[in-house]
Amino acid sequence: KRLAQLRFKHAWTEEEFRMATDLISEPGPYGLHDSMFLITCRDQGSDAQQSMYYERAAKYEIIGCYAQTELGHGSNVRGLETTATWNPDKKNFILHSPHLTASKWWIGSLGRTANHAVVMAQLILNGKSLGPHPFVVQIRDMESHEPLPNVHVGDIGPKFGYNTMDNGFLLFNNLEIPHESMLARYSGVDPKTNKYIRPASASLVYGTLTFIRSNIVMQAGSVLARGVTIATRYCAIRRQFQDKDAPAGSVGESPVLNYTMVQIRLLPLLAATFALHFTGKSMMDLYNENKKRMGEKATAGDAKRGPGPEEINAGSDLLADLHATSCGLKSLASITAAEGLEVCRRACGGHGYSSFSGIGPWYADYLPTVSWEGDSYMLTQQVARYLLKSARSVLKGEKPTNDTTQILSTYLSRADMGAAFDVLGSDEDLVAAFAWRAAYLTFEALKHRDEHKKAWNDLLVDFFRLSKAHSQYLIVKNFYDALHRSETAAELDPETIAVLYKLFRLYALHTLETEASEFYTSSAVTVRQIQLARSTMVMKLLQEIRPHAVRLVDSWDFPDWQLDSSLGRFDGKVYEDLFHRASEQNPLNGITIDPYPNNGILFKSNQSAAYKSKL
Amino acid sequence: KRLAQLRFKHAWTEEEFRMATDLISEPGPYGLHDSMFLITCRDQGSDAQQSMYYERAAKYEIIGCYAQTELGHGSNVRGLETTATWNPDKKNFILHSPHLTASKWWIGSLGRTANHAVVMAQLILNGKSLGPHPFVVQIRDMESHEPLPNVHVGDIGPKFGYNTMDNGFLLFNNLEIPHESMLARYSGVDPKTNKYIRPASASLVYGTLTFIRSNIVMQAGSVLARGVTIATRYCAIRRQFQDKDAPAGSVGESPVLNYTMVQIRLLPLLAATFALHFTGKSMMDLYNENKKRMGEKATAGDAKRGPGPEEINAGSDLLADLHATSCGLKSLASITAAEGLEVCRRACGGHGYSSFSGIGPWYADYLPTVSWEGDSYMLTQQVARYLLKSARSVLKGEKPTNDTTQILSTYLSRADMGAAFDVLGSDEDLVAAFAWRAAYLTFEALKHRDEHKKAWNDLLVDFFRLSKAHSQYLIVKNFYDALHRSETAAELDPETIAVLYKLFRLYALHTLETEASEFYTSSAVTVRQIQLARSTMVMKLLQEIRPHAVRLVDSWDFPDWQLDSSLGRFDGKVYEDLFHRASEQNPLNGITIDPYPNNGILFKSNQSAAYKSKL
Repeated sequence: KRLAQLRFKHAWTEEEFRMATDLISEPGPYGLHDSMFLITCRDQGSDAQQSMYYERAAKYEIIGCYAQTELGHGSNVRGLETTATWNPDKKNFILHSPHLTASKWWIGSLGRTANHAVVMAQLILNGKSLGPHPFVVQIRDMESHEPLPNVHVGDIGPKFGYNTMDNGFLLFNNLEIPHESMLARYSGVDPKTNKYIRPASASLVYGTLTFIRSNIVMQAGSVLARGVTIATRYCAIRRQFQDKDAPAGSVGESPVLNYTMVQIRLLPLLAATFALHFTGKSMMDLYNENKKRMGEKATAGDAKRGPGPEEINAGSDLLADLHATSCGLKSLASITAAEGLEVCRRACGGHGYSSFSGIGPWYADYLPTVSWEGDSYMLTQQVARYLLKSARSVLKGEKPTNDTTQILSTYLSRADMGAAFDVLGSDEDLVAAFAWRAAYLTFEALKHRDEHKKAWNDLLVDFFRLSKAHSQYLIVKNFYDALHRSETAAELDPETIAVLYKLFRLYALHTLETEASEFYTSSAVTVRQIQLARSTMVMKLLQEIRPHAVRLVDSWDFPDWQLDSSLGRFDGKVYEDLFHRASEQNPLNGITIDPYPNNGILFKSNQSAAYKSKL
Repeated sequence: KRLAQLRFKHAWTEEEFRMATDLISEPGPYGLHDSMFLITCRDQGSDAQQSMYYERAAKYEIIGCYAQTELGHGSNVRGLETTATWNPDKKNFILHSPHLTASKWWIGSLGRTANHAVVMAQLILNGKSLGPHPFVVQIRDMESHEPLPNVHVGDIGPKFGYNTMDNGFLLFNNLEIPHESMLARYSGVDPKTNKYIRPASASLVYGTLTFIRSNIVMQAGSVLARGVTIATRYCAIRRQFQDKDAPAGSVGESPVLNYTMVQIRLLPLLAATFALHFTGKSMMDLYNENKKRMGEKATAGDAKRGPGPEEINAGSDLLADLHATSCGLKSLASITAAEGLEVCRRACGGHGYSSFSGIGPWYADYLPTVSWEGDSYMLTQQVARYLLKSARSVLKGEKPTNDTTQILSTYLSRADMGAAFDVLGSDEDLVAAFAWRAAYLTFEALKHRDEHKKAWNDLLVDFFRLSKAHSQYLIVKNFYDALHRSETAAELDPETIAVLYKLFRLYALHTLETEASEFYTSSAVTVRQIQLARSTMVMKLLQEIRPHAVRLVDSWDFPDWQLDSSLGRFDGKVYEDLFHRASEQNPLNGITIDPYPNNGILFKSNQSAAYKSKL
């Protein structure tokens, strides 16, 4: 609440408001109101609906949420069970949840907060289903905040994290809602003729999802950067064991960041934070450029989403490319960040497990990103589908129109001769080797599908690999391009750029040796090159980056209060802070218990309230 | 408390008690009392000390904990800072924590429960440090349970999980403790001469750690099995999307377990649960056999642990082998189980994130296993050290005395000729290929260390890989051997054994293709074999195991109340249970809030107490 009050007081712009929300680093109960509810009302409402819903919502007079996912239906939007049936007699809709699995579920801000919801429901007109459409529905009384009649709504209970958000459920029992409930900018029902008004095209919907996914990629970099910052700072302070090769008689333990087994876990992740940041940024640029080009000409609803996931009605070739790459990158970036945070936590040893590390809760809150806005495992099918389509067009001899078809035709023209990439000596060749491997896997998958007629389901695992390979290529390429841009040279001093080059090489070579077998099989590299990358180049880069590690994480510039971590303190006073929090601020230490199992009482005394007042 | 009361009422044996503890599946405040405190008093106390401490503790008259780890010192026991200085005038010890980093930290059962502690402290005699020794120290008053003078003790605060255990901190300010505090079975101070009494050998200590680690390996199988059970059952119920190749006009979505992208994540883990179980079991057998052989002849303290981690004073060659393999397997098994649980959680899609999935909290409670009893990343050095030593002895032409030296000399004798393993056609060859790769990596590491004189620190990453390779060989071998034992044939019907063989092959081939590049490089397999394993064999096995998947997880026989999972219910009533818990049992739904940011009040009404009484 406080934040929404401040927003008005200082008249923040939308961007300033998002920044403030990010800084709090915790999902809040207005989260879905401020994002999905407002945006949907604004973008999909008619002009009359905008003033009715959007303007009042912007002033927090109505509080909304976005109810799409159902108990039994997540990724497959077409499968939603909630129905909105047009009643031609009363000229209104009847909203109904026919089964338990039709219950709206996981809806953020719905559990306790919202009094309105955008409900996605199957539109039924004259007994025919026309697919999911958005309806704005009041669900709680504006005064008492009690649920309205025929509405069953509540909170879905505790989660692994994200517990500051009230995710809710919602069921309707033949609830009548007026005609104007249906958001009618792109499609609707004509109340006079009882006929359906069709949308023009479906590409705008993909635009929004592409935007959200690009955002996830960029965020993945900064999310991971928090964990890397904490772990790197702590590992520079933490000392454990003497170096085995230390001269006899020398004293003192080494900082654990000097151990290569710690470096190999943290420094490639440090490189990944920058790689993801540059990649997300370049996707955003592409998206904005494309949006500008398309202008405002398109009007579209999402009524025509195909029955399976294979069909896309892409507006332009560039948009299709952007849509596909955003799917693959969303998948890879979210998995990289989630797993990377856990690696950071473990690198902190035992103390990483304490809540005072600041990593655990942050990890738990981030995890749903892997599943939402397209499950990161399902989503890779869309990438594969697009790559197969592109490969078919290249095989037909069509001219490359974007980077994807470009790398595919380059591969095709040289596949017989083979490749000889100097991955250890040339950065350009390193990027080319990633492109080569992605192209090789694309044509392999195409062979399985088109020549061997393999079942789609039997290829899902290959598709996941293919999507990963393609996304890794994009990240390596974007990182490389970012370093070559003239703006970069202008903004940074040559020394910093030199260190960033090392990070680029570390990211690329470490990825290459981790995925070694695909690089061999595609004959992009030789066994000898992989061995050298692994045992010499990567180890050398770790050693060269080590002295800059702390300075590099400091460049992300997280303030201490945001990290909220004893281990990641800028001043390195790790142990003092851990001790202070445990000994002086821990309310449990106000309680004295009875330890003997055969005594009935549990507490001897309880002064924990005194600690709470200190916090 | 209830459990300890029941224990006496029914006079449970130690094994029955452990079973009951496992069934509760939650760490309890007496956890460390019942394990480390009791065992240490029993095994390291003199006869007089056994009656003084062990017998009273067994009756819960004194409640103890085991205080070894310090704020600044985890894995490196030699680096502990707490001192116990012998005072020849008063014939007692002075226990002191010289710095903040000397604070005992993470000590289970210490935060609120214990009134005694086994404290590991540096014994100082005549100004000379003799290394860490165990002391039994009273820390809280037996009546009031308040901390004693010169003792600062408390709880260390919230953790990522494991919050049902009161982990604590402990500092001493020149606390005087009597001579009999020092546990004196193996070493001690003679109060008359003020001289140190030396321990005979150090091998027994490794015995205990080996036992604990073998236990962790076996537990890893069942821990993972809980997650696999929940995810497999749920994925057999959950339906999402139509198969892309489904004939036009067909209705209904497919169970997600039919998707190969879900199978490739869950079924290899299902195979791993059995693989880990059989491996842990065979380690236990080896340990018990070895213990019997050693008899009671050895008496040892842990005073002679070397300064770095390289020295081991192993009792027998078999014990050394067991010690090293237990380190490697502990590392691999704990990482496999922890990461596998998260894979299971994600395979449950969005609902996996709900606490009602039963996986999240279980995962969070399991995570510390990766770090404790030897950090799973540090520990691999011990395996590498042992393998290097074994390789040196084989190079010198010494006769193989155990399985490790056996596989090393087999490799050496054939390294020039190369290998030609029929990994796809013969199970025996499959096991041999794993042995070959481990031996190859061992001799590579030896070359780097002994010939190229590489720094120990530069080899840590190679050592981690080596340890993993060796442990994977052991798991594959133990799984294979277990299936060939005559007891197995007697206990199980041929059909079940046939399915277990498929699981063995799935585990081995999936591991082989995941680690493909090491298998190539060692020329244990060809590129063509890997490609076939990946795209044909593994996919075929998934398809063959799919129909048995639910039956296989049912064989682990977890009762519903132990899984505590809506998604993993035996009867498949997933959605009904989720809804019941959210709608009927969720106290949050008794609270009505005020949603408007500019109103000062937060709660309109609060009836949540009514829900609590239902739970």
